[in-house]
Amino acid sequence: MKISNLGEYNLIKRFVKRFLPTQKNLLVPIGDDSFVARSPKDCIVITTDLLIENVHFSLNWVKFSKNRKEFFKALGYKSLAVNISDLSAMGCAKPLYCIISLGIPEYLTVEDIENFYSGIEILTKKFNILIAGGDTNSAASFIINIGLIGSTPEDKIIKRSGAKPGNRIYVSGELGDASAGLKILQSQQYPTKDGRYFIKKHLYPPVRIKEGKIISKYATSMIDCSDGLVNSIKLICESSKVGANVYIEKVPVSEKLKKNFSNWQEFVLYGGEDYELIFTSDKKNKFECIGEIIPKKSGINFFYNGRKIKIQKEKLIHHFKSI
Amino acid sequence: MKISNLGEYNLIKRFVKRFLPTQKNLLVPIGDDSFVARSPKDCIVITTDLLIENVHFSLNWVKFSKNRKEFFKALGYKSLAVNISDLSAMGCAKPLYCIISLGIPEYLTVEDIENFYSGIEILTKKFNILIAGGDTNSAASFIINIGLIGSTPEDKIIKRSGAKPGNRIYVSGELGDASAGLKILQSQQYPTKDGRYFIKKHLYPPVRIKEGKIISKYATSMIDCSDGLVNSIKLICESSKVGANVYIEKVPVSEKLKKNFSNWQEFVLYGGEDYELIFTSDKKNKFECIGEIIPKKSGINFFYNGRKIKIQKEKLIHHFKSI
Repeated sequence: MKISNLGEYNLIKRFVKRFLPTQKNLLVPIGDDSFVARSPKDCIVITTDLLIENVHFSLNWVKFSKNRKEFFKALGYKSLAVNISDLSAMGCAKPLYCIISLGIPEYLTVEDIENFYSGIEILTKKFNILIAGGDTNSAASFIINIGLIGSTPEDKIIKRSGAKPGNRIYVSGELGDASAGLKILQSQQYPTKDGRYFIKKHLYPPVRIKEGKIISKYATSMIDCSDGLVNSIKLICESSKVGANVYIEKVPVSEKLKKNFSNWQEFVLYGGEDYELIFTSDKKNKFECIGEIIPKKSGINFFYNGRKIKIQKEKLIHHFKSI
Repeated sequence: MKISNLGEYNLIKRFVKRFLPTQKNLLVPIGDDSFVARSPKDCIVITTDLLIENVHFSLNWVKFSKNRKEFFKALGYKSLAVNISDLSAMGCAKPLYCIISLGIPEYLTVEDIENFYSGIEILTKKFNILIAGGDTNSAASFIINIGLIGSTPEDKIIKRSGAKPGNRIYVSGELGDASAGLKILQSQQYPTKDGRYFIKKHLYPPVRIKEGKIISKYATSMIDCSDGLVNSIKLICESSKVGANVYIEKVPVSEKLKKNFSNWQEFVLYGGEDYELIFTSDKKNKFECIGEIIPKKSGINFFYNGRKIKIQKEKLIHHFKSI
């Protein structure tokens, strides 16, 4: 069904009807000028992410998904997952309320938007997140903005700025696969079986809320690896006024990535979109140690099997380049 | 300066630097993965609005502003003002934190974005709103999404759904001017002195936080008049399961609107973008009474000097039409 036939009010009514049953105990559920709920006792945590068609994703990717429905479901999933990731990087955060703004081009159908919301719903159900409203408009391309509000106990907040020389650097999972998936999607070539694995890693990033909570007990600093390992380490070091040595041979990398890409190190260093947690700690823990924090004057250094890697600045994600 | 020369991190750094000084007592100010603050004791109120170039505004309008700087300042002001309006419509809400996502096309400069933020700053300073983060990306056209989080005492919340037969309907100010301004902007004709007045009313909507607080003492229902009088009355009536009689001759309308437009009633009925508060009450008050709530079975009726007005459905704002 065409969205213009339905109109904004009716489109919103559909989703209000879908999500309202879980909002019975609220003061003002979705559907009014604003949403109102009792404040959490803990601190509130706020983040937001904007995804734009032909910048962050392309509808050409539909053909590499199982079908159009699965593509829009993945897009909904990912749009909320990247926000949850920002919350998880603060340590012990619990996501509570999300706001969803959509700019909808006329080539999308009501079914596309419903499938998009099905992807969102996987995560709202898993984490008990309530939809606290949004805005829906026509647009020339598909625009998705999600804001996420959560809570966190004050004594468990982990910032980027707490790393100290002598701390070790850890990562919560494998890096590189998601950006390999993006490369395959951009190539527009029909993917192999391994190719589909990478694409899935790109479209369904991990959500590390549980891990963030565990890590918050011993981390001195933390960030989510959304813009690649080099950028993430740089941001921790700049905020904490320290340097770092990182050993790429210690970074967890999938066998598939090493098998399929001789330049797998580039995906790990510059790739991004992995949404794993990178943190520093002075305590031994169950996660993979990939380096250590050193004084600022010693710089930020990446090594592979003892040899220093020259960082190629032009390969870093800077967010003003389209896909 | 071109934004692509600066890069996302440096652009963000600029604004973090600009807004950080006011955030000294926060747990985690802007610049980390998420923003963290102590929860308000009162309830939290959440809203969001998406503004898209060539849907909600056009850069062609620059030529009708004093200069490019003033245009971007007005755009920043309006983007935040429409969110504050959603909060004011809940009654006694106090805005606290906003999140700002921007999709920036390459034809905007760093100065444009700085002027945009100057417009935002007029309101953040006036209402002590903190910028709690955002996301900045490249885009094919200018995209603005603002989310706003505030607080409200539980016993002062006014919903759309509380109107009762016998209540009178009130409005906080003049209707129609803002949509007359939009029409002039769309016509692309050089405006007269009165024309510039209407344009200003469109670009700088009123912010009714103070009035909302007063009204919350006696209102039974409330809405902000963003989509026109007919839509607003319909939404109150649908939520409250009531009908209404509205008398257009009682609606406050500027002398300028009546003088310049023989069809001024259409701007009042269908125009929207006025951002005045429309509310119902059973108590006398200082605002203009424009009608009364009646039982649902009696319908929703608009009159002008005793004659019933036929509502033209095709003129109602439905948000899937571009400017």
